[in-house]
Amino acid sequence: MTRSVLDPDERTVGEWIETAGRFVTSFLGDLDDAPAVGPALPAALAHRLGQPPPAAPGRFEDLLATFGEAAGHAMSTAGPRFFAYVPGGGLMSSAIAEMLARAVNRQTAVAWAAPGLVTLEQGVLRWLCAEFGLPEGSSGVITTGASMGTLSVVVAARHRHLGEEFGDGVLYVSDHTHFCVAKAARIAGLRHVRVVPSTAELTMDVPAVARMIARDRAAGLRPFLVVGNAGTTSTGAVDRLDDLAALARREDLWLHVDGAYGGFFQLTRRGRDLFTGIGEADSVTLDPHKGLFLPYGTGVLLVRDLAALRAAHAEDAPYLTGDDAVLPNYGDLGAELTREFRGLRLWLPLHLHGVDAFRATLDEMLDLAAHAHEVLRETPGVAAPWPPPLSTAVFRSVDGNEATRRLLERVHAANTVSLSATTVHERTMIRMCLLSHRSHQVHVDEALDLVRAAASGQDFGSSSSRPPAAQI
Amino acid sequence: MTRSVLDPDERTVGEWIETAGRFVTSFLGDLDDAPAVGPALPAALAHRLGQPPPAAPGRFEDLLATFGEAAGHAMSTAGPRFFAYVPGGGLMSSAIAEMLARAVNRQTAVAWAAPGLVTLEQGVLRWLCAEFGLPEGSSGVITTGASMGTLSVVVAARHRHLGEEFGDGVLYVSDHTHFCVAKAARIAGLRHVRVVPSTAELTMDVPAVARMIARDRAAGLRPFLVVGNAGTTSTGAVDRLDDLAALARREDLWLHVDGAYGGFFQLTRRGRDLFTGIGEADSVTLDPHKGLFLPYGTGVLLVRDLAALRAAHAEDAPYLTGDDAVLPNYGDLGAELTREFRGLRLWLPLHLHGVDAFRATLDEMLDLAAHAHEVLRETPGVAAPWPPPLSTAVFRSVDGNEATRRLLERVHAANTVSLSATTVHERTMIRMCLLSHRSHQVHVDEALDLVRAAASGQDFGSSSSRPPAAQI
Repeated sequence: MTRSVLDPDERTVGEWIETAGRFVTSFLGDLDDAPAVGPALPAALAHRLGQPPPAAPGRFEDLLATFGEAAGHAMSTAGPRFFAYVPGGGLMSSAIAEMLARAVNRQTAVAWAAPGLVTLEQGVLRWLCAEFGLPEGSSGVITTGASMGTLSVVVAARHRHLGEEFGDGVLYVSDHTHFCVAKAARIAGLRHVRVVPSTAELTMDVPAVARMIARDRAAGLRPFLVVGNAGTTSTGAVDRLDDLAALARREDLWLHVDGAYGGFFQLTRRGRDLFTGIGEADSVTLDPHKGLFLPYGTGVLLVRDLAALRAAHAEDAPYLTGDDAVLPNYGDLGAELTREFRGLRLWLPLHLHGVDAFRATLDEMLDLAAHAHEVLRETPGVAAPWPPPLSTAVFRSVDGNEATRRLLERVHAANTVSLSATTVHERTMIRMCLLSHRSHQVHVDEALDLVRAAASGQDFGSSSSRPPAAQI
Repeated sequence: MTRSVLDPDERTVGEWIETAGRFVTSFLGDLDDAPAVGPALPAALAHRLGQPPPAAPGRFEDLLATFGEAAGHAMSTAGPRFFAYVPGGGLMSSAIAEMLARAVNRQTAVAWAAPGLVTLEQGVLRWLCAEFGLPEGSSGVITTGASMGTLSVVVAARHRHLGEEFGDGVLYVSDHTHFCVAKAARIAGLRHVRVVPSTAELTMDVPAVARMIARDRAAGLRPFLVVGNAGTTSTGAVDRLDDLAALARREDLWLHVDGAYGGFFQLTRRGRDLFTGIGEADSVTLDPHKGLFLPYGTGVLLVRDLAALRAAHAEDAPYLTGDDAVLPNYGDLGAELTREFRGLRLWLPLHLHGVDAFRATLDEMLDLAAHAHEVLRETPGVAAPWPPPLSTAVFRSVDGNEATRRLLERVHAANTVSLSATTVHERTMIRMCLLSHRSHQVHVDEALDLVRAAASGQDFGSSSSRPPAAQI
């Protein structure tokens, strides 16, 4: 056999995988002791890391060492004490699935190129539709994240409700809706995004939406899309999805539910109770890299009517039957075309660990957030105004925004945990988001101890490597 | 340590990786003998594969066996005899990189979350800019494929040249431009896509573009974007990029070059000669999953001015300095937000194999296509009208379109190679695209022998599993 240097024999590939395996297990072994944020990137190292690829080959081990070094100068997003933004941990079973899928290298933009693999993927998507109470015939597509699913939804709703002349289209979000909706609207060329105020419970004020819709219609505009939250990123607040569904039906709007952060709590009894009405939605975005603990880079879009997605994206969109036997061409359902077999990174973890393990871990996250809230409520100098509806505990200093920012800085100075900040009704709040399968009560208690100590004025030194406290 | 079932100990993870390694090396060992297209998917197997995930855990080995079974019912896109559409093969070094990146699970939407890794990624992108002759300060972003990069370009050009009211914007493509441009325009809400006829050499008729622009301006429309091809998907024809650059400058248009299929031939002397002018482009899309032999799912967008990309996608876009020391936030540069460390799948192969190995393999592909053309020209009953500018040899039966389709069917009936069909100036043509690092002359000659035999009327039986001959 002729072989190119790009196509080494099986022995060499086997050795690379073995070496990669040692790297990974060593990384996992160190994870519990890793600082929350690695040291700042020295200029000399940055210079070395930024070098162009050389003409000649390098050694696999050396390159892994360089990768490991580069990865050390970063937030420890995979670790058990990462409670900032929205963690996910990163299931190893999914990381391994990714190597397998890329090695086998099948193309799944068109179903006939790999029908067996598309069938595996559809099995996961149909199961999700059923879990969310979406009717028979609903389906979906695996994306790289909720932003991509949201874009497809905005484009599909625009196409269905507005047609080609859409300058008068209006969509409605709450003041806690993630900015990916506004970004998608911007990309799709939609100018009218109404921000609906939220109630004292931090949920969308549904009567206010109705009034805004009436006003917009009176002004000759065309309302076409309303976005509800199955857990806002900020605080986990859950909109009244049943009321929004009734409104959307009455007003003939597309109802989209953003479940990027919280959606997978639908797998728990408590989540299902909170999300009543979600099965009435036209579409739901989810982020398995959050609520299913997958590594970054995997979203899911569920839709009631795949034909709407297809009609908006494919030039010639023949009638798509609801027949389950007909596999969808994923390349017709969004902005992407060529597509790796993306399903394995969900299919393998779900089938390997079993769904009950995910339900139990999600329940653990709800318990941990409730526990954190109880402790924070009793912590002197700290206010924790809302019991967490899902897995995000928010709190602040009783001494105002500036004091809250200082409190967060003092907690971070210990460089063992990561929290993040947000703004709710003009108050700066600290968020502690529990959504990593590696986080357990021992880690949460460490963070709570730090908060208690910091709130009592204790100083942990300064963490020079910490980036500017960005808000989500 | 508390451990959840989702977070097994290092020993278990090590065993999984070992098992996955055996699966991969066994798959690679069988690749050379795999049929071009696996058997059709039996209904009973489809039923089994489509089952929802179970409540209880499964066995890793069993699940890998199921995956392997599902993957067998597919086109052998990773094999050495896959010459259909655009192959890429799928470098194992990149598949392994993917496992490593997902295991370490860093977030690269914002540079401060993993500056070391973003620096590695920028090193690759800056090197590419230099290879393409783009000026200092140019940069880029790694996407999931050229369709995504194209969407970002259309949105950025729309934002820069048209502003918020863009109903009068016009963009220009050739009749050989990939449909992803029209799809991106559709998503971005642009209605005027002019299809410019191509010359006898199958390249865009530049004087014709100029005339169409004048006509559109006279009608009160606003031309803003022209798309050239650095290798059409159909035949590999290369547009006169220098002429297009001059036209774009004269008319104040954004010049985008679609190098999804052919762009990486810039790494060869022959490619560079053909692509004269590509360094004048405002943007270039590339598909490393084609021309760098990576597994499916990796595109690259290079842009002269990253600020244009950022201004179009980020709500608040402060002035972005051209300072290389400032790392970009990839989440501001396109439709996506949360983002895995995508750079390793390019960085590791390039640094491991060295750039010379890629240059040599791309040169081999050019040689193979030239060889195929020579043989096809001498094959009785076959017409091969154009010498391949790049690595795609096209030919047809001398007896017309129906005979050409039958010729392709007869070649495919042997089920050892995959070719595909296209239409050029109303003639059905067969394409043989050489772009897998696993394809060498022995495989090409096998295909050419089959074509010769099929053209002489020989019958190889029927391939029931072959999907309907889709065109690209």
